Amino acid sequence: MIQLNFEKMGGLVPAIAQDNDTGEVLMLAFMNRAAWEETLKTGRATYYSRTRKTLWVKGLTSGNIQEVQEIRVDCDHDTVLLKVRQVGGAACHTGYASCFFKKVDQQSLIIVGAPVFDPEEVYKK
Amino acid sequence: MIQLNFEKMGGLVPAIAQDNDTGEVLMLAFMNRAAWEETLKTGRATYYSRTRKTLWVKGLTSGNIQEVQEIRVDCDHDTVLLKVRQVGGAACHTGYASCFFKKVDQQSLIIVGAPVFDPEEVYKK
Repeated sequence: MIQLNFEKMGGLVPAIAQDNDTGEVLMLAFMNRAAWEETLKTGRATYYSRTRKTLWVKGLTSGNIQEVQEIRVDCDHDTVLLKVRQVGGAACHTGYASCFFKKVDQQSLIIVGAPVFDPEEVYKK
Repeated sequence: MIQLNFEKMGGLVPAIAQDNDTGEVLMLAFMNRAAWEETLKTGRATYYSRTRKTLWVKGLTSGNIQEVQEIRVDCDHDTVLLKVRQVGGAACHTGYASCFFKKVDQQSLIIVGAPVFDPEEVYKK
C-alpha cells in the first residue's frame, strides 16, 4: 500500500485536481486516509470536507464527478496530484470550469472566463 | 489590497506552482500573509517554510527561483495558483523538474522522468 504522510497536517494531505487533457488546474481540496483509499479503490476523486467533516465524493450532488486518469505523489509524500477527466466540464461549485477563475491584475482581481453551469439550477433541490 | 482567507489554516494558504509554459504542476507549498505580500511585491515566488518557520524565497540556495508570470486566486480565496517561469528547469530539491515525479502504478509508485540537477552538487556548501 502506498503510504502518504498524513501527520504534517493533522490527518490530511492537500490534493490538487488537474484536467488531464488541458493541464488546467481545477481545484485544491484535502484528503484524509479514507478519502485517499476511496479514491484509489473507486477511481473517482474523493476528498474530505473540512466544513462538513465527512468524505466528499466530488460531483455527487452536481453530477460533475472527477474520473481519475493518473495519480502523482510528491517528493515527500505529503501532497497528491490527481489528473482527472472532469465530467460536466466544471469543477467549481460557482459553475466555472476551474476554481481559479480570479486573476490578480494590479491591486485587484478580475474574472477570467465564464461559468459553464448555473449553480442555482444545479444545486437546487 | 487583495484579501486572502488565512484563517482556515491558522495563518497559511496553500500555493500551487505551475509551469506557465508547459502547464506542469511543479510543487505545492504554503504562504503566510508576509509571503503573499512579498510574492506580489517582488514577482518571485516566496513561501513560508513550516519546518524552518521563516519566509522562503524559492530558489535562493539553488538558484532555481520562480519568476511569477500570473497569479490566480480560487473561488473562496483560500488557495493561490502561481503560474511561473522555473529558472533552472527544476522546482524540486531532489533535482526533478516537478516534485510530483512519483506516479501511482497499481499498488506502488514508479519514478517518472529523470533529475535535471544533482542535489549534492547544488546544495553543497
